[in-house]
Amino acid sequence: MTAIGRFISLEGGEGAGKSTQARLLADALAMRGIETLVTREPGGSEGAEAIRALLMQGEVARWSPHSEALLFAAARADHVEKTIRPALGAGRWVICDRFLDSSRAYQGVAGGIDDAAVLALHAFGSRGLLPDRTLVLELSPELGRRRAAVRDGAAADRFAARGDTFHADVAAAFRRFAKQEPERFRLVGATAGIDDVADAVFAAVADLLP
Amino acid sequence: MTAIGRFISLEGGEGAGKSTQARLLADALAMRGIETLVTREPGGSEGAEAIRALLMQGEVARWSPHSEALLFAAARADHVEKTIRPALGAGRWVICDRFLDSSRAYQGVAGGIDDAAVLALHAFGSRGLLPDRTLVLELSPELGRRRAAVRDGAAADRFAARGDTFHADVAAAFRRFAKQEPERFRLVGATAGIDDVADAVFAAVADLLP
Ligand SMILES: Nc1ncnc2c1ncn2[C@@H]1O[C@H](COP(=O)(O)OP(=O)(O)OP(=O)(O)O)[C@@H](O)[C@H]1O
Ligand SMILES: Nc1ncnc2c1ncn2[C@@H]1O[C@H](COP(=O)(O)OP(=O)(O)OP(=O)(O)O)[C@@H](O)[C@H]1O
Ligand SMILES: [Mg+2]
Ligand SMILES: [Mg+2]
Repeated sequence: MTAIGRFISLEGGEGAGKSTQARLLADALAMRGIETLVTREPGGSEGAEAIRALLMQGEVARWSPHSEALLFAAARADHVEKTIRPALGAGRWVICDRFLDSSRAYQGVAGGIDDAAVLALHAFGSRGLLPDRTLVLELSPELGRRRAAVRDGAAADRFAARGDTFHADVAAAFRRFAKQEPERFRLVGATAGIDDVADAVFAAVADLLP
Repeated sequence: MTAIGRFISLEGGEGAGKSTQARLLADALAMRGIETLVTREPGGSEGAEAIRALLMQGEVARWSPHSEALLFAAARADHVEKTIRPALGAGRWVICDRFLDSSRAYQGVAGGIDDAAVLALHAFGSRGLLPDRTLVLELSPELGRRRAAVRDGAAADRFAARGDTFHADVAAAFRRFAKQEPERFRLVGATAGIDDVADAVFAAVADLLP
């Protein structure tokens, strides 16, 4: 029997635990003998990491919403082609720390870019590849910021620097997407301790296991 | 009377004389008291120049055609917003060394990207801004390469490194665009000496003068 690669994305606000849970999910899958690849966006391939540097550095207003959406789509196209599709093709599970839905939420909310336009760029760049499952880690922006502050000290990137309403609107956008595609999405509460959240994350992909 | 800014782009293969003629056209316009801005693509603004570095360096196969088209559209969006529209708004003539039609020709020919898709990205990123006049400098690829070799010595970027058929196909694409939009385009022979070509370039925008 050939292994079937599954594509899981983790979404949610800053400090919600996406990177932490991506690693823990990979560990849990590995214990069941499943080969995994943990990757992240923007980035995840040589070209996409170079674009990431342009996106994450500089002033909040460095890029217009439209330029930003195009840069994210370019990075994602490279990431999908060079990293994600090859891993899926080899039967590995790909666990991706942020993906398309972050573009839909952030560019949609911050830039007023139409959801349809973000999806059209994704159709063009990445032939519309969607995750098999998208987990939204839900945490209040305040708690997420506190967690991230402990982790980072003073550093903040172009996105973390935005205000409270912004982060609440992003969270609402993720919930809206989940309602539109209930098969693909699962909302996962992320307020509890790391191991409890990890259990909930694993439960939310269990139906995809071989 | 307020000055009306005009937007002129120069297109054509490598070494055809685009950069040379952009400067000479600006000089000729300045002699008539017209304020000009000479700019180039990819690049022409801080963000677009950073994207240019990603596009021009590395292997020919560094980017897929789709990623490349998205990066060009992102750079152009930044260039249009930060450099071109403000100058036009101030009544200056903008003379741009390569613009949208280079993306249509190069990504269309090299990457097989639909012309409609390149135009859709431009509509999204730059609200579809088109030059008032586009001059295609026509020169055989061999002569262009010889001129560029004298200029550059051994250096070649990701685009110059491609073969003869490629450059002939690009030239044919520019002629096709000119046929589709005869009002916007003028074909200008670029085989003659610099000053003769400059006269032809000036004649090809004379109807736009105040
Ligand atoms: N459930 C949890 N309880 C307490 N602390 C947590 C929990 N999950 C993660 N953390 C800690 O909070 C910080 C942020 O977690 P993590 O980096 O995984 O979040 P993230 O969603 O990837 O953030 P970012 O959006 O900034 O990349 C880390 O220091 C992590 O150890
Ligand atoms: N009409 C001409 N006759 C002879 N030499 C020319 C002529 N026009 C330009 N040149 C020389 O040829 C070289 C290439 O010209 P130029 O740099 O303007 O071309 P270009 O179209 O901008 O090239 P590229 O596509 O590489 O940017 C330069 O050294 C320039 O001085
Ligand atoms: Mg993280
Ligand atoms: Mg030039």
